[in-house]
Amino acid sequence: MIHTDLCIIGAGPVGLFAVFEAGLLKMRCHLIDALPQVGGQLSEIYPQKPIYDIPGYPEVNAQDLVDNLMEQAKPFSPTFTLGERVDHLDKQEDGSFIVTTSDKTKVHAQVVIIAGGLGCFEPRKPAIENLELYEGNGVTYMVKDPEKFRDKNVVLAGGGDSALDWTIFLSKVAKKVTLVHRNETFRGAPDSAAKVFDLANNGKIDLILSANLKQLSGNGKLDSVTFMDKSKVEHVIETDYLIPLFGLSPKLGPIADWGLSIDKNAIEVDTRDYSTGVERIYAIGDINTYPGKLKLILCGFHEAAIMMHSAFKYVYPDQKLSFKYTTVNGVNSF
Amino acid sequence: MIHTDLCIIGAGPVGLFAVFEAGLLKMRCHLIDALPQVGGQLSEIYPQKPIYDIPGYPEVNAQDLVDNLMEQAKPFSPTFTLGERVDHLDKQEDGSFIVTTSDKTKVHAQVVIIAGGLGCFEPRKPAIENLELYEGNGVTYMVKDPEKFRDKNVVLAGGGDSALDWTIFLSKVAKKVTLVHRNETFRGAPDSAAKVFDLANNGKIDLILSANLKQLSGNGKLDSVTFMDKSKVEHVIETDYLIPLFGLSPKLGPIADWGLSIDKNAIEVDTRDYSTGVERIYAIGDINTYPGKLKLILCGFHEAAIMMHSAFKYVYPDQKLSFKYTTVNGVNSF
Ligand SMILES: Cc1cc2nc3c(=O)[nH]c(=O)nc-3n(C[C@H](O)[C@H](O)[C@H](O)COP(=O)(O)OP(=O)(O)OC[C@H]3O[C@@H](n4cnc5c(N)ncnc54)[C@H](O)[C@@H]3O)c2cc1C
Ligand SMILES: Cc1cc2nc3c(=O)[nH]c(=O)nc-3n(C[C@H](O)[C@H](O)[C@H](O)COP(=O)(O)OP(=O)(O)OC[C@H]3O[C@@H](n4cnc5c(N)ncnc54)[C@H](O)[C@@H]3O)c2cc1C
Repeated sequence: MIHTDLCIIGAGPVGLFAVFEAGLLKMRCHLIDALPQVGGQLSEIYPQKPIYDIPGYPEVNAQDLVDNLMEQAKPFSPTFTLGERVDHLDKQEDGSFIVTTSDKTKVHAQVVIIAGGLGCFEPRKPAIENLELYEGNGVTYMVKDPEKFRDKNVVLAGGGDSALDWTIFLSKVAKKVTLVHRNETFRGAPDSAAKVFDLANNGKIDLILSANLKQLSGNGKLDSVTFMDKSKVEHVIETDYLIPLFGLSPKLGPIADWGLSIDKNAIEVDTRDYSTGVERIYAIGDINTYPGKLKLILCGFHEAAIMMHSAFKYVYPDQKLSFKYTTVNGVNSF
Repeated sequence: MIHTDLCIIGAGPVGLFAVFEAGLLKMRCHLIDALPQVGGQLSEIYPQKPIYDIPGYPEVNAQDLVDNLMEQAKPFSPTFTLGERVDHLDKQEDGSFIVTTSDKTKVHAQVVIIAGGLGCFEPRKPAIENLELYEGNGVTYMVKDPEKFRDKNVVLAGGGDSALDWTIFLSKVAKKVTLVHRNETFRGAPDSAAKVFDLANNGKIDLILSANLKQLSGNGKLDSVTFMDKSKVEHVIETDYLIPLFGLSPKLGPIADWGLSIDKNAIEVDTRDYSTGVERIYAIGDINTYPGKLKLILCGFHEAAIMMHSAFKYVYPDQKLSFKYTTVNGVNSF
């Protein structure tokens, strides 16, 4: 069990900035995100796009903003559980919460902050029969720890940047890598595509184009993948793992089941402190809604600051919050 | 008469960012500030201090933040009236406003945005009899246009950075500069103080220490200033101008007279859109108050963004607002 003052669900820009605002009030945070990396939509959907409406930044690359937010949070030493979805919140008798993830990680916190954005990023899945049977038994949608694939046979499927990048990376780790893609050309970065063609030409990987996944076989654990080529001929590849990388899309997911008041896939909050209807649960960033709400990063920043002043009383019930400007003594004085 | 979509009172960080948010919705702004420079409290009170709680900036110097906000607003070509206080707002029959300054500058706008911070920065005045008689007739508290002092006799009073900096600057412009200070040492930056002592040693300025202003004389227009030295002897200096630079402090000022609902020197607003009780007048940043309000720069940024979506209908009554992320096409597409 991990113990912390505040458990933040979602490590997007808003969850990350919340760590800093919490730190100013001497509250410590643990963050959980379903994605294997921090940054939410910015890192997952548009890491290389410039953003123009972050106040004080005439232009900032999305991934750079995430890096800066991590740097800003650093003095307050946040801890992270990545690549796990939060499934349950359980209220304890003393009012605190135990948060449980898809991998059964448990976090005990005085306050829960939902910074879940548009929801949990979930993989787009290929349409293959019996897929669920092999999920976790050979089929995986995310590379959390590349070491898992060392000296194994791996089939990747997809044509975007993730598929290309992981093909290149795993070609150095796995015993054998096969990339299956339904077109002749790739959507991903041209230089990554060129590298993948190179690896194939040099016999370092097997590249199968204009082909579709058809069938999975195995006895409880994946043994082989069948695909059909453009002349409708079926082929079988023996493999330990199949990694379909068809992109991720956000779904509200388990958040809908926590007894909160939901409107259009967002949690209704009180703008005085961005509290939900349930005591000690707050919602900030894209995941919340209120009259006038705009789904903008800068709005989530404000919500995080305001919210912390309300959460303080649950972490320090006997203390009076004293509000100081950061300029007075710098961050180290907090 | 200046014509604009939005008249912003106060060119502090929040007023400046409001220009950018207005620009995204194709609304143009004119800003008015009582200070001769933009930046509000940041430029006036703590330009060289680092701020740590601007989201995405682990540390940023206050003046640099102001410069960045100016840069960010630039694509939308804001116009400025600086060094003038807004005294009156007059509602027109069609709902628009005419805004009038202390110098009788008039601005016609569809919407008025009060971003007045802690109020109008007003000079701390020396305790001399008949001071008001000479204000505007030789006594001035602010250097708006240094050319006004070319080849004139000028007496400055004070011991902070403004007094030192203007003494150095005007020594190159004025016929004769005298600096009077009540102590032997200066509060301002040591290198500026050293420069002032240098100028005095080289006969470029007259430096009178441990002395206090006592009396002003003239016939409708200032002719001379009398000061008393530490041995209680009175001296008279003939001069065209006296510039007392004893610092500025913010006072709510005329804002209190505009029929708005005021609580503890701040304007009460509706958090749905940061509107005041008077249609077409909004209040954002330190000047407003609502349940949960924090006087933080980042909160003012959020308020500016939200507010613009409400003001849009007054500028474009026949158009539907379309909300686009800046990442989609960059700032130039707005
Ligand atoms: C293409 C594009 C361009 C954009 N451009 C701009 C722009 O120019 N300016 C701007 O202000 N905004 C822009 N946005 C919107 C901006 O990205 C969002 O406002 C911002 O990401 C919201 O941050 P957040 O931290 O609230 O949520 P997110 O960034 O969505 O992060 C939420 C995180 O929570 C995680 N999560 C959710 N549920 C769970 C769960 N149950 N368990 C574990 N983890 C969970 C998700 O995996 C995700 O990583 C853009 C968005 C897109 C898609
Ligand atoms: C020493 C110090 C340290 C601080 N540190 C931090 C920090 O670390 N983080 C943080 O977020 N905040 C900090 N603050 C607070 C921060 O400076 C304010 O929140 C911010 O300046 C508010 O911006 P604003 O644009 O609303 O108002 P202001 O910066 O106050 O600007 C308002 C402007 O409006 C003008 N004005 C008012 N009335 C009129 C009128 N009638 N006519 C013409 N002009 C008018 C004023 O002259 C002024 O220039 C600090 C403040 C101080 C003093």
